Amino acid sequence: MQTLIQSVLAFQNTSLESVDVLLDGQQIHTVAPAGTLPTTPDRQIISGQDKLLLPGFVNGHTHSSQVWQRGLIPQLPLELWLADVFDSTPQQLEQFYWGAVSTAIDTVLSGGTCLMDHAYVIPGREIETMDALVRGYRSVGIRAVIAPLIQDMPFAAGFPSGCLLPQGTSPKPAEQQLALMEALIAEFHDPDQGIYIGLGPTGFHRCSDALLQGCAELSDRHQLCYHMHLLETRAQHRVAQERYGMSAVQHLSNLGCLSSRTSLAHGVWISDNDIALLASTGATLVHNPVSNLRLGSGLAPILNCLQAGLNVSFGCDGAASNDAQNLLEAIKLGTILHRISDSDYENWITPEQALAMATVGGAKGVHLSDRIGTIASGMEADLVLYNLNHASMLPRTNPLQLLVLGRPTEVVETVWIRGQKIVNQGQMLTVNPNILNQVLQQRISTPEQKRSAYDNIESHYRKVMLKP
Amino acid sequence: MQTLIQSVLAFQNTSLESVDVLLDGQQIHTVAPAGTLPTTPDRQIISGQDKLLLPGFVNGHTHSSQVWQRGLIPQLPLELWLADVFDSTPQQLEQFYWGAVSTAIDTVLSGGTCLMDHAYVIPGREIETMDALVRGYRSVGIRAVIAPLIQDMPFAAGFPSGCLLPQGTSPKPAEQQLALMEALIAEFHDPDQGIYIGLGPTGFHRCSDALLQGCAELSDRHQLCYHMHLLETRAQHRVAQERYGMSAVQHLSNLGCLSSRTSLAHGVWISDNDIALLASTGATLVHNPVSNLRLGSGLAPILNCLQAGLNVSFGCDGAASNDAQNLLEAIKLGTILHRISDSDYENWITPEQALAMATVGGAKGVHLSDRIGTIASGMEADLVLYNLNHASMLPRTNPLQLLVLGRPTEVVETVWIRGQKIVNQGQMLTVNPNILNQVLQQRISTPEQKRSAYDNIESHYRKVMLKP
Repeated sequence: MQTLIQSVLAFQNTSLESVDVLLDGQQIHTVAPAGTLPTTPDRQIISGQDKLLLPGFVNGHTHSSQVWQRGLIPQLPLELWLADVFDSTPQQLEQFYWGAVSTAIDTVLSGGTCLMDHAYVIPGREIETMDALVRGYRSVGIRAVIAPLIQDMPFAAGFPSGCLLPQGTSPKPAEQQLALMEALIAEFHDPDQGIYIGLGPTGFHRCSDALLQGCAELSDRHQLCYHMHLLETRAQHRVAQERYGMSAVQHLSNLGCLSSRTSLAHGVWISDNDIALLASTGATLVHNPVSNLRLGSGLAPILNCLQAGLNVSFGCDGAASNDAQNLLEAIKLGTILHRISDSDYENWITPEQALAMATVGGAKGVHLSDRIGTIASGMEADLVLYNLNHASMLPRTNPLQLLVLGRPTEVVETVWIRGQKIVNQGQMLTVNPNILNQVLQQRISTPEQKRSAYDNIESHYRKVMLKP
Repeated sequence: MQTLIQSVLAFQNTSLESVDVLLDGQQIHTVAPAGTLPTTPDRQIISGQDKLLLPGFVNGHTHSSQVWQRGLIPQLPLELWLADVFDSTPQQLEQFYWGAVSTAIDTVLSGGTCLMDHAYVIPGREIETMDALVRGYRSVGIRAVIAPLIQDMPFAAGFPSGCLLPQGTSPKPAEQQLALMEALIAEFHDPDQGIYIGLGPTGFHRCSDALLQGCAELSDRHQLCYHMHLLETRAQHRVAQERYGMSAVQHLSNLGCLSSRTSLAHGVWISDNDIALLASTGATLVHNPVSNLRLGSGLAPILNCLQAGLNVSFGCDGAASNDAQNLLEAIKLGTILHRISDSDYENWITPEQALAMATVGGAKGVHLSDRIGTIASGMEADLVLYNLNHASMLPRTNPLQLLVLGRPTEVVETVWIRGQKIVNQGQMLTVNPNILNQVLQQRISTPEQKRSAYDNIESHYRKVMLKP
């Protein structure tokens, strides 16, 4: 059965238009001027009155299993925070399933239809972990790109002068990691079901050149998204200088790791030269404003990126560094934050630009802009219908500005992903959130008494980063 | 009838304790270790299981009538934004009543029990406007301090080299403004009903010394809060240099305007010397992080303020510059924003500190810390009970961190103000929000076609502020 959304305000490229939208199967069949598509008996009719229709947002960067660490990790910069994250990382497969379900629900109910899970997978149980994640995403019905976190250098490698730290366990060498990725791609990459595998090296700072290049080769061969952290912190910037004697972006470019399939999370410490180089490759920068503030990472040069023509999308980052997973919150903050870095208001991000970044920009970042991110005939039906009569969308002024700059709550009324209705009247149709809540309630986590990783590194970090 | 909240996690100064809390009339009668206060037939019993009890937050700075401009004003810095705000300011008394109701509901449902309304009042209809605001606040039952915005210099005075601008209408002279304030104090100041009048000169930049001093005299004589904008923008900083040849804070101090009853909104451009001077007077700085970013005003030096012992509280600012009125959002952003200005994480604001700033810090800022802001015997019962079983407060980790750093939604379960239960099971008891919504839905505002104020000043602003 087809679905006809009649006379709805829809976000078209950069502005709102009143249109009729006809959905057929997984796809958007027709977009036509309001009132022109006929009501027929085989069409389910949805009134667009007092509604707003947007392409689903893409959450360009998160770590789903961190749902279990929400509210848990103290106020620390990335490198020390990470020590506590490692010490409290979930180790049970069931937790990965529910972490995916929770992340997917939070994404969908804040306007998202697709996410990039830069996923921790249990060493030695990679297949089972991936299976749990895929089951979680398929049970919700969200479109998901899963890029398992891989690295072949120890934790200490991510610190300036990291050679002075205890080296800890060494991860598997590059060739084993790449063989594992080949197996995971063969087993789980399934575009027809909305599940995609990406290559997800942790970041240059904990990966050898062989691993970074091997991932690029797999990304080329299978046409998969290549996703990694990039220069999130000043410490990583110093690691690049120590190790390469040049910008990390230039090094990645030299290795052949940058293309239009590449998406890079954070980029807080990229230079103007880096921005120009990234823009020339067609890569995407994923901006995670909440996480960048929570971890004190700094202010990513987003206005410079946009002016240079670099594609920028938004991410929530994991729940250990953004103790919420709400896309509208990340979009609001990412829109207003950068005004303090440029007094010329003609350069400020507008609500319309922010929505383009979150939709078509997000789709580019996960290498899916030929399928999703715009409301047009032939695109897949990943759509979100918002209720403009909700208190948080009143009074009637500019609905796009209310959505981006307000604090919309419970305004997501209907969500379709790949044509399937996932949410109706604000309620999840595919999974029961109450069961998730019961699971989350039952498990009590408290800050670790034993902080072995943290204790090993705190004084080193303080010495190299705070007393220059 | 007394109310006994049994075995509840309560925020006590800087940490959580499990206590019994007995309410009697308007007051907190007793706070005792959990399980020690007896159940008696004349006591209503409330289980504290899976609940969190906090003193109500104080919204230290807002402008209630701007509810009507939510989502309306484009992306501009304060001085230009203000031109559009003036052009679209509500002029009907009914709008002021509903603006107060809306602001109060948003405050209460995001954990607040008191607000400072730096209120626009219609020139020539000041008594009627104030009456509408007071009726609005009393209908909701919130504790409200209303400081009518007054100024005796024209709009142009707030710009560097403002003498070059058309001077527009001149407001009434200082003595008439002060006489008006005496009348409003006599008519509306009513602490027994939770309604307080404050002195609210717009800011030094649009007020003569006579008006600033006259307000200080009234504040002294009636022991009222003295509230004003302070150095919100770089433009205001330049106005102070042009007009006084010294720091605006030093000038206010010389005039005798700073005391423990003074609360100053923004302070984005205060210096270390200003901070030391403010701290020595016992004044309060009200931090409005969302508005400061939305208007590109800059980054207030909040960590320096805290280290200097200056009292800092949080505000939402009006809905024209923060298109939401959610205190938890302002608290979250104000907590994490300042990490980018100090790499030493030992100086970062913790969730516990943020809650102290929002409660006891907020109470000090409205000169009410002897009555509200802490959970202790003899204090008035302005309390908020949160539901820890809501999805946004899971999993069970650190409830204070989840509240401050997460995105809690619909977690406010019960609210008492002056002992009166205002919210029960998340629903307003005193007013029907659906009626407010109907009123807001009926009025459609669109950006003004005619932007006379804006057109008069844009080129001047660009010349003096962007091309130095």
